[in-house]
Amino acid sequence: MDRAGPNDIAFFSDKRYKNYLASTQAGAVILTGNDTEFYGGNALITDNPHLRFAEMAELLISSVTTHRVGIHPTAIVEQNANISKTAKIGEYVVIEEGAYIGDHVTIGSGCHIEQNAVIGDRTKIYSNVVVRYGCEIGSNCIIHPGVVIGSDGFGYAKDGAKWIKVPQLGRVLIGNEVEIGANTVIDRGALYDTIIGNGVKLDNLIQVAHNVEIGDDTAIAGCVGIAGSAKIGKRCAIGGQAGILGHLEITDDVQIAAASLVMNSIKKSGMYSANLKADDYDSWKKNAARFYHLDEMARRLKQLEKTVKQFINKG
Amino acid sequence: MDRAGPNDIAFFSDKRYKNYLASTQAGAVILTGNDTEFYGGNALITDNPHLRFAEMAELLISSVTTHRVGIHPTAIVEQNANISKTAKIGEYVVIEEGAYIGDHVTIGSGCHIEQNAVIGDRTKIYSNVVVRYGCEIGSNCIIHPGVVIGSDGFGYAKDGAKWIKVPQLGRVLIGNEVEIGANTVIDRGALYDTIIGNGVKLDNLIQVAHNVEIGDDTAIAGCVGIAGSAKIGKRCAIGGQAGILGHLEITDDVQIAAASLVMNSIKKSGMYSANLKADDYDSWKKNAARFYHLDEMARRLKQLEKTVKQFINKG
Amino acid sequence: MDRAGPNDIAFFSDKRYKNYLASTQAGAVILTGNDTEFYGGNALITDNPHLRFAEMAELLISSVTTHRVGIHPTAIVEQNANISKTAKIGEYVVIEEGAYIGDHVTIGSGCHIEQNAVIGDRTKIYSNVVVRYGCEIGSNCIIHPGVVIGSDGFGYAKDGAKWIKVPQLGRVLIGNEVEIGANTVIDRGALYDTIIGNGVKLDNLIQVAHNVEIGDDTAIAGCVGIAGSAKIGKRCAIGGQAGILGHLEITDDVQIAAASLVMNSIKKSGMYSANLKADDYDSWKKNAARFYHLDEMARRLKQLEKTVKQFINKG
Repeated sequence: MDRAGPNDIAFFSDKRYKNYLASTQAGAVILTGNDTEFYGGNALITDNPHLRFAEMAELLISSVTTHRVGIHPTAIVEQNANISKTAKIGEYVVIEEGAYIGDHVTIGSGCHIEQNAVIGDRTKIYSNVVVRYGCEIGSNCIIHPGVVIGSDGFGYAKDGAKWIKVPQLGRVLIGNEVEIGANTVIDRGALYDTIIGNGVKLDNLIQVAHNVEIGDDTAIAGCVGIAGSAKIGKRCAIGGQAGILGHLEITDDVQIAAASLVMNSIKKSGMYSANLKADDYDSWKKNAARFYHLDEMARRLKQLEKTVKQFINKG
Repeated sequence: MDRAGPNDIAFFSDKRYKNYLASTQAGAVILTGNDTEFYGGNALITDNPHLRFAEMAELLISSVTTHRVGIHPTAIVEQNANISKTAKIGEYVVIEEGAYIGDHVTIGSGCHIEQNAVIGDRTKIYSNVVVRYGCEIGSNCIIHPGVVIGSDGFGYAKDGAKWIKVPQLGRVLIGNEVEIGANTVIDRGALYDTIIGNGVKLDNLIQVAHNVEIGDDTAIAGCVGIAGSAKIGKRCAIGGQAGILGHLEITDDVQIAAASLVMNSIKKSGMYSANLKADDYDSWKKNAARFYHLDEMARRLKQLEKTVKQFINKG
Repeated sequence: MDRAGPNDIAFFSDKRYKNYLASTQAGAVILTGNDTEFYGGNALITDNPHLRFAEMAELLISSVTTHRVGIHPTAIVEQNANISKTAKIGEYVVIEEGAYIGDHVTIGSGCHIEQNAVIGDRTKIYSNVVVRYGCEIGSNCIIHPGVVIGSDGFGYAKDGAKWIKVPQLGRVLIGNEVEIGANTVIDRGALYDTIIGNGVKLDNLIQVAHNVEIGDDTAIAGCVGIAGSAKIGKRCAIGGQAGILGHLEITDDVQIAAASLVMNSIKKSGMYSANLKADDYDSWKKNAARFYHLDEMARRLKQLEKTVKQFINKG
């Protein structure tokens, strides 16, 4: 609102910025009916200003960005790949046999879509993305540059000290309306599939290991690592740099704070944390040093309680 | 075992799934001699069912996945690059002068192999991998999509407040039977080389800084960061999101728990940890707040012990 | 110094290696005037040996590495892209309309420079980098392979349980002399721009979210995650795997220790930490278990102090 001019539309959804309402130069403001008392200009009244702004911006931006149309002559499409006539395939893309590319799909330059992969209608894939063989992406998804889908899971059998690769035979199955951030990696399953539900939003540089399952409408922020066979419920929100250990289950509607490590299954909805906030180094150093004597401190406290109690009782 | 049909082979190596043995529809089961008492069907008996399964699956999968044969016409191979006639070079690959590509090597689409790089026999490199100049990869390695090998280390000299780049003159030398996960990065050495031993397994999105050395048969899970000149021993296992500070040494046969930070050299084999498990937010908040007073608590406890001792002695 | 021969130049800047000075076979050593007493060979005397070494190595390396000259015939350059005649554009590069590529710029194979992006003079971009539409990179920058600049920020409005994408309308603006490590991602701003100052150095696999601002000459090590709208000052140094929460401000000249989470604004220069060092597992386990009872311990300690005080006073 503070930078908008007469040709801009602003939105108001955070009470902290209330005083901008009086002074904004915006041509119109999206706001709730309750907030109209603070504002005398052109108003678009709605229950959810942030959502209406998102929809409006989507309309405007889709008329600004241009896309290549059709199959670029440098794209290599193997026989028996099934590509919709309305799809837009970019420069230097490779699409292998048996792949299916749905209606109005966009695939950016330098992508590699391997054999029998499926890309659903209206899904948009940006540059240099790799979708390995047999993996399936639903419709209306957005896959940002550098994403790798369907790379091998990290699975080995031990032969003495040597690690022997266990072939990763599953796929990655991704639902509809999923967004995947730049350079994120989703491994294929070992025996069965890695599964990403509908409406899941993954930020950048996330690691999703083999056989992970992520429930519908869960959002995961950047740099999160999810170990093999972890099962995350629906509508969860996982903060940046959090870690989820393998072979555990997180129920629906769980929030995990940033940089927190989930080491056990979570059976009850709600918020969980394991993070400590940075302190000035001298203070931190003193307190952290004590951490390594916590068990001893606890024992001494217990002993002292006992000593005092005995002495008082005796006294 | 629970999903296998008469045309499938299953394996049994985890006692927890013992009751599936009686009911499995699998055509055959790989298991140990000790476990045959629970199972009356076709059995493949071995000491290490998981390993035998891995080997068998490898045989089967290698007949399923197809690979481009020869040098694809769109690949650009500079003069004086030495490419084996049995290598398979994919679409839009660039191979610079002096590079050596061994027998039966596979290089996926969009890779860039810079000058004088060496790729050993039977190594498989997936799409969009960059191997920078002079770096060497051994034989029988697997490099997943988006990996970068030989990017510059993060090295600067200070000139007042400015950081002046220190040219990174070393290489990355990778042994045999190494697997490197998608979007992992291994920086070249500053003066000498970054060294990855034989049989090392690196998961996705790992950062290996300049002059790191990783010993044979060490396995490192996703999102780990290893700072410059750290030296990691043989047969170590490092959990996901762990961090290793620079210029320290970890001996052989060390296990590091997930999300743990190694801040000092480790001279004794065994398991090490620095992680805290996520707790429900209200509990976590209360305990974490006390952490910042641990030093004061320790001093008060000591003082109280002294006071009580003096009083009792006096009494 | 220990490995240099008569045709090598060594440098001496760390007193711990003083005894190498007497025995080095180097043809010459760069060192300070104060250190000449320990060394009788050919000397290059300077106040800052590491810096002089960096400059000298830069001179030598620039004559070793070769670069493609001109626009490679496989590069696709759209109409109305403005490319300097002295730029070097690599194989299979795509440059969209309206993009500006400055003098002596190098762009590696497989890069995609989208419409209206700007690449300043002498900037070097390695292979498979994506610079999305409208983003601007200054002069003398170095962008390592796999970097993504200008991907969408992670922004959604809630519509019941669903996340509705908020279009990301800002750009990424990067100053001069910036270096960005392999596979690092910098998201475009939501409404305004993400801003990276002059002389900033980013290591590999870093996540920079939408609307982050990073001040001049700040250096950030690998695997750091910076959440949306965080503002980091000038000349800061941020250790590997550190996390910075969103919508906070870090002043100039702040150092953050590795793997530490910044959860509040930092208004005073200096060093901050939140990391715990790995301990042997048995010790760690015992102490970590007590962490979850810290609040109870603190209450018991306080109660005991009170009990003792009352008893002594009564006595």
